[in-house]
Amino acid sequence: MRERLSILASWPPLAWGSSYTRATLSSDLTAALIVTIMLIPQSLAYAMLAGLPPQAGLYASILPLVTYALFGSSRVLAVGPVAVVSLMTAAAIGKIAPAGSSEAIAAALALALISGLMLLALGILRLGFLANFLSHPVISGFITASGILIAAGQLKHVFGVSASGHTVQEIAISLWENASAANLATVVIGLGSAAFLFWSRRKLKPLLVSSGIGARWADVLAKASPVAAVAVTTIAAWTLDLGSAGVRLVGAVPQGLPPLTVPPIDTEMWLSLAGSATLITIVGFVESVSVAQTLAAKRRQRIVPDQELIGLGSANVAAAFSGGYPVTGGFARSVVNFDAGAETPAAGIFTAVGIAIATLTLTPLLAYLPQATLGATIIVAVLSLVDFGIFKRSWRYAKADFAAVLATMSVTLFVSVELGILAGVLLSLLIHLYRTSRPHVAVVGQVAGTEHFRNVLRHEVITNPAILSVRVDESLYFANARFLEDFLFSAVAQKPDVKHVILVCPAVNAIDLSALESLENINRSLAESGVTLNLSEVKGPVMDRLKRSDFLEHLTGRVFLSQHLAVQELAAGINKAGASEKA
Amino acid sequence: MRERLSILASWPPLAWGSSYTRATLSSDLTAALIVTIMLIPQSLAYAMLAGLPPQAGLYASILPLVTYALFGSSRVLAVGPVAVVSLMTAAAIGKIAPAGSSEAIAAALALALISGLMLLALGILRLGFLANFLSHPVISGFITASGILIAAGQLKHVFGVSASGHTVQEIAISLWENASAANLATVVIGLGSAAFLFWSRRKLKPLLVSSGIGARWADVLAKASPVAAVAVTTIAAWTLDLGSAGVRLVGAVPQGLPPLTVPPIDTEMWLSLAGSATLITIVGFVESVSVAQTLAAKRRQRIVPDQELIGLGSANVAAAFSGGYPVTGGFARSVVNFDAGAETPAAGIFTAVGIAIATLTLTPLLAYLPQATLGATIIVAVLSLVDFGIFKRSWRYAKADFAAVLATMSVTLFVSVELGILAGVLLSLLIHLYRTSRPHVAVVGQVAGTEHFRNVLRHEVITNPAILSVRVDESLYFANARFLEDFLFSAVAQKPDVKHVILVCPAVNAIDLSALESLENINRSLAESGVTLNLSEVKGPVMDRLKRSDFLEHLTGRVFLSQHLAVQELAAGINKAGASEKA
Repeated sequence: MRERLSILASWPPLAWGSSYTRATLSSDLTAALIVTIMLIPQSLAYAMLAGLPPQAGLYASILPLVTYALFGSSRVLAVGPVAVVSLMTAAAIGKIAPAGSSEAIAAALALALISGLMLLALGILRLGFLANFLSHPVISGFITASGILIAAGQLKHVFGVSASGHTVQEIAISLWENASAANLATVVIGLGSAAFLFWSRRKLKPLLVSSGIGARWADVLAKASPVAAVAVTTIAAWTLDLGSAGVRLVGAVPQGLPPLTVPPIDTEMWLSLAGSATLITIVGFVESVSVAQTLAAKRRQRIVPDQELIGLGSANVAAAFSGGYPVTGGFARSVVNFDAGAETPAAGIFTAVGIAIATLTLTPLLAYLPQATLGATIIVAVLSLVDFGIFKRSWRYAKADFAAVLATMSVTLFVSVELGILAGVLLSLLIHLYRTSRPHVAVVGQVAGTEHFRNVLRHEVITNPAILSVRVDESLYFANARFLEDFLFSAVAQKPDVKHVILVCPAVNAIDLSALESLENINRSLAESGVTLNLSEVKGPVMDRLKRSDFLEHLTGRVFLSQHLAVQELAAGINKAGASEKA
Repeated sequence: MRERLSILASWPPLAWGSSYTRATLSSDLTAALIVTIMLIPQSLAYAMLAGLPPQAGLYASILPLVTYALFGSSRVLAVGPVAVVSLMTAAAIGKIAPAGSSEAIAAALALALISGLMLLALGILRLGFLANFLSHPVISGFITASGILIAAGQLKHVFGVSASGHTVQEIAISLWENASAANLATVVIGLGSAAFLFWSRRKLKPLLVSSGIGARWADVLAKASPVAAVAVTTIAAWTLDLGSAGVRLVGAVPQGLPPLTVPPIDTEMWLSLAGSATLITIVGFVESVSVAQTLAAKRRQRIVPDQELIGLGSANVAAAFSGGYPVTGGFARSVVNFDAGAETPAAGIFTAVGIAIATLTLTPLLAYLPQATLGATIIVAVLSLVDFGIFKRSWRYAKADFAAVLATMSVTLFVSVELGILAGVLLSLLIHLYRTSRPHVAVVGQVAGTEHFRNVLRHEVITNPAILSVRVDESLYFANARFLEDFLFSAVAQKPDVKHVILVCPAVNAIDLSALESLENINRSLAESGVTLNLSEVKGPVMDRLKRSDFLEHLTGRVFLSQHLAVQELAAGINKAGASEKA
């Protein structure tokens, strides 16, 4: 009973619902209206990108928004179909069935269900940390490459030709071979829409502001320009009967609320989708949680990553049962939602109502919408994802990160979307392990007149020939345990006068069993050549752990609280021994 | 020309050859004699374990020893067939051809060649660090499990029955089903040899010492007991015609020096052996380099890991072209070589000569050697590899290391040798990433009357409500970048009075691009809620790298040399602002 209450007590709507006021309602309604206007053309376009009928995009923007509002922890995240996940969906279901077929629609439902269950499982098991393994360079490289791939793939709609391919080179060759079949009316609509959208993205807002419209409404109007493009080209196609002139139109879209759909439960299909679903789960979660966290921090709110997993998981399960496909939190629309003043997840519920009304009323008009307009909408939207600056930034900052960007981007573009992200993750891990396997290790000496110890190679310091002090700037674990042995044995081999080795440990945050066994080996081997091993400045938690082994009992030297004390006492011991030898 | 000279100058034999004296020769010859006596029965037994004819073991103990002596960097490492690598060879070639067949022999040559080329490539590319990813718990778990598997697999020879299987449960079931076919004479020889060898391993040396023989010679005689077992049982089998009584004998072994063999160059075979060869390469290298390093340190010598790769690589290539199979440095025989006084790799060359003489002269006698004796030799040898103490040590020291031992050991025993080591490596990596993804992070305050700052949860400290000081005890990289954002945003969200955040960085050894972007995000988001971000005690190399980005230009706060200074100056700023607000 108590447990149930505590689950209820942490249910997100209780927190924001209890303080819901009329002012909040007004803010949420305004934001919902703006996001709805933005989401209608996007939903249709991204469904086309995913290789699904347009209504799948609308359906994915209804129930999933409601369930996210009930279970997610972000107050302003706007959930729905997004470009990158739509591209990944196309790649995943394309392996099973041709785009637009009923098998493809069924596979998309299954994909949403698997991904939703994975997100829920990660949330319940509190495994959200797994998403951390997607480093920023990998995400940047992947999103930029996805943007290029998506834009390239939409060119066929803009030119009204048939083309196919899953890599940029395949798409380019296919476009080249079919270029002669381009349809003039389609090109006019496609390029015209693209030009208008590019222009309005850059110039419309300043123009409206200079003509006396308030900055906020100017922004809203500029954001609504895809709707204008859709409306104008739909009317043109209808009045001029462009369909007969060879312009491909969206065609009949069923009118009405989302149907109840049951995703196919087919072991073979699920197994073949499992890998793709894992990647969609991780990429979707990372994209969503990054946006949610950034926006929450701006208002000193916080999100709970494990609760986000539950929210996104339930949204995907809802998509699977209501004719949708995988969804996640979108960057652009969440920023619009935030800027438009959304204060609670109720804005998401109002957006869902808006899309539902559009599905009930506007769908007959969409039959005349040219596919070229949607293609242009996608191209303009995704090109804002493309960020070549990451090459320069990573090159300047760290070559290892540059390598991860380059690998992710080129494999995504030239080989496959899914292998691209895998290559990036594996390379990041290898690079991290390589870096920590050769930690910065310095022989240190005392700065005259102080208690400070510094690298002998960089500073003028005093050293005692019988004492070798080595500072390791990394936690000691299996990947660098042998490196430490190499370093110490070779340093001692080069200095025959050394009687004491001191390992200076202020930067050692952990010592695992491999490193402990290396230290035991170092201790034993140094003892056989007449050298003691000492430690200084060992951190509390590291010391606690060392006490659980018998290492400290076998240690030939001592553990000193400070390096200064260590050198002082060991030097005193040497002088004493020297004096008694002479005596 | 100069380059050639410098390569020549670092050629290991030049270092030890130039100071070779008559005394060194005498030490090396003595050690070689002892190792030869130990190596003859081992070579035959390990070849049987690998599923190869006995002469393969002898051949693997001739040329490879010579090439290692010419190219390796250890002065005392004794190379040849070893138990664990023999088991791995059996697993690898067993997938291609039945044990003892000519295809199996050819596959073993190919395996040695691939592994040799891999070792050479790793050495030339200086990639020896890759071996570090085999953590000590994984190695311990793997070697213990291998010991048990090998011993279980040899029981069939001791009982004279047929049995097969690659996992302990398969071997156990197979032995049980065939137990009724046990041959009495074989059991007497097998159990008798095993009992004698166990006894002599524990009791013979003290007995010899107490009967007046010097400790060193007592040790040598005790080490030679497998030779005694081989001699006695061979003579028994010959004189009593035990072959007709159903005792399986080794049979005809060709007399003469190793033949020149050409490993099959067959793409399909190479591809199917590549995975196994990779594991053999890594396990062989790790085992060898650990022994070499430990022994070198005892005499203040050093080994060069990349040179070791060249030495072992050339030894394996030599094995491939002279009828052998994969070899590496053995633990027991290297210790014997060291204890027997070997001073230079010339001892290895003399051992090779010893084995060659044995191959020329003793092989006719080996025809009557019972396989049960070899089985007993192997069982007694490998049971010394079994170390269950690792369970207790790792459990006490760190549960994560315990999990790695348990996973490696159980997968090796119950699933497969190769998957066992892979499971261990993957689990170690995941555990390491998990640990560093949730670093120790402490909110710190000032210890009254000092310049020291300590964890507010553990110590009585002074904090300023407008300043939040957070110390991170780990390098910042992609796996923990989001954790830091979570921690800071939630800490600031809980403390509405905070105006300044200080990140205390003495334990931050690196900041990768992901973490840099997280810091930029933290800086930006905190700024929007009116909080500055400051850093203190940033290490030199980390600061150098930060200067390569524009992070420091955008930083809303400052970088302070010490945490004490940071709190002092920020608090002064707050008081000033407070005073002017009041005024």
